[in-house]
Amino acid sequence: MLNAVEWCGSSLRFLDQTKLPHEESYITTSDYRVIIDAIKKLRIRGAPLIGIAAAYGVCLAGLEFSRQGKDPFLSHLKNSIQEFSSSRPTAVNLYWALNRMEHVLSSKKTPEEIVQLLIHEAIAIHKEDTEACRKIGELGASLFTRPMTILTHCNTGALATGGEGTALSVILHAHRQGKLNNVFVDETRPLLQGARLTTWELKKNNIEPVLIVDSMAGTLMKQKKIDCVIVGADRIASNGDVANKIGTYSLAVLAQHHRIPFYVAAPTSTIDTNINSGDEIPIEERSGIEIITIQGQQIAPSEVKTYSPAFDVTPAVLVSALITDKGIFTYPYSFGTTMTN
Amino acid sequence: MLNAVEWCGSSLRFLDQTKLPHEESYITTSDYRVIIDAIKKLRIRGAPLIGIAAAYGVCLAGLEFSRQGKDPFLSHLKNSIQEFSSSRPTAVNLYWALNRMEHVLSSKKTPEEIVQLLIHEAIAIHKEDTEACRKIGELGASLFTRPMTILTHCNTGALATGGEGTALSVILHAHRQGKLNNVFVDETRPLLQGARLTTWELKKNNIEPVLIVDSMAGTLMKQKKIDCVIVGADRIASNGDVANKIGTYSLAVLAQHHRIPFYVAAPTSTIDTNINSGDEIPIEERSGIEIITIQGQQIAPSEVKTYSPAFDVTPAVLVSALITDKGIFTYPYSFGTTMTN
Repeated sequence: MLNAVEWCGSSLRFLDQTKLPHEESYITTSDYRVIIDAIKKLRIRGAPLIGIAAAYGVCLAGLEFSRQGKDPFLSHLKNSIQEFSSSRPTAVNLYWALNRMEHVLSSKKTPEEIVQLLIHEAIAIHKEDTEACRKIGELGASLFTRPMTILTHCNTGALATGGEGTALSVILHAHRQGKLNNVFVDETRPLLQGARLTTWELKKNNIEPVLIVDSMAGTLMKQKKIDCVIVGADRIASNGDVANKIGTYSLAVLAQHHRIPFYVAAPTSTIDTNINSGDEIPIEERSGIEIITIQGQQIAPSEVKTYSPAFDVTPAVLVSALITDKGIFTYPYSFGTTMTN
Repeated sequence: MLNAVEWCGSSLRFLDQTKLPHEESYITTSDYRVIIDAIKKLRIRGAPLIGIAAAYGVCLAGLEFSRQGKDPFLSHLKNSIQEFSSSRPTAVNLYWALNRMEHVLSSKKTPEEIVQLLIHEAIAIHKEDTEACRKIGELGASLFTRPMTILTHCNTGALATGGEGTALSVILHAHRQGKLNNVFVDETRPLLQGARLTTWELKKNNIEPVLIVDSMAGTLMKQKKIDCVIVGADRIASNGDVANKIGTYSLAVLAQHHRIPFYVAAPTSTIDTNINSGDEIPIEERSGIEIITIQGQQIAPSEVKTYSPAFDVTPAVLVSALITDKGIFTYPYSFGTTMTN
């Protein structure tokens, strides 16, 4: 299986996703700052994978600071956790993973011993996500009683998680069970994760997807070419509101209009029980350069104004079901009371 | 004012729109085949402008064949009209203009005299469209009683018509009357007419638009940032169903969901009274290369399958009002009986 990030004992090897599909280029580093930069620049991306990479990044910081006395070790390590924490604001898996790493720091042990505990915890986070992906895939595919034509958005596979993915894991499991008729992939402007990454991953899994531009999704639904929509999530509020890649909300409205099921697949680490609704989810705004230029090539007047929220929020009422590693949930959602992470 | 096409007596000068916004490059030709090729390759585009350019193209063919005897002259000219007719299938203005040109051929006059009549007719078609754009702008702006924030899709201005445009003419008139607060422009994948052309045209008119990717429109509506949507049309059926650039249908559904007016602006030459509904409108499918590559740069695996309808059909019931040069119409539409072109 594809390893988007791989722990190498004292360094992290990761695939530079900005170079795909043209080049399969790996970077190996023992500098946690390179991981922070990779997260900011989307070389490493996808809510679960950001959490995993940040956990390993904290291990690299631990290794770097472990020869210092315990107080400076802890102080530097907490600073590095803070730096990871401010790398991207929307995906909650990042904070969830960093919280687990920070919890290890309260141990009474030596810096060297704490580093070993950190590595143990990061590997656990990674393995749990691999397993969560498998369960999501199994549970999601169990929803289908016949071969489905599925529309998906952005990238939610091995490139975005520690396993086979979230929405993409459902698609892969459905394929293996003979329940996949066809997959339409939204290109997902501005950064083209669908066109660049999802098509590439599906082809690696011997599935031939059909690539469309984002604005074609509505017409496909009108033509009755789509049986359901499945997307991932970057943060889910207690009431079930879902923050995900920009364009997700439009798909949910269009799916409702056409009476097509709209599924969200995510590990429970994506659920933020600390917030009540999607209104409280911070939405990252990215540079207009990502709209005005595509892979470095200018496509609009350079001085034009832009608006570029990277995510949108889909109200829970539009989500037909939430497929998690701990079960399939349906509206009304109330994760604040029913779920403990 | 910008002249996307300009008749020069015995040649046609046109702006190569595929080079915008990087280069303002004009081509002058007396070869009608160059015009056909320019229409196919979207160097000349926009439903009304395609009709105008084809009319001038027939004049060029007439000049080329006028030294032949009347029978070969008429035969060659009819063939050239047939060639124009098969250049693009969806915009009805092309057939409407070619029908007017073909009607001239029934005259008893000499080839030289007929060519003069053809030129007279093409110039009339062009002038009528200039005037239609002005009326559409005036009527459209009269709908607004306060400064509006408008969302538009694709390009519907001087680059798409013989005047100031259709939807864009409404925006320009509103601006001059102090009724324009802001304009959001969908980039309009795959060929980026919004990003490349509409932003460029608005800036030429001293309006600073905000460019967004197509999938952001729904979120803008949810955020109550949009007061209305205005788009153009490539063909309107008797019942008011509207074929327009891919993505238009999704905008109409999203506008209905958010209770935002959705206006279509078009000259009456865009109304096809010969067909009852949008089901009868032929939808052009274009090459997947337009999705897989952007301005020559590859953005997806080269061998990936695609689906690329250039237009979609919006049911009349989703159209709040149709703004034409002959008045503003509202649902239910019945152009077959109320309008003669």
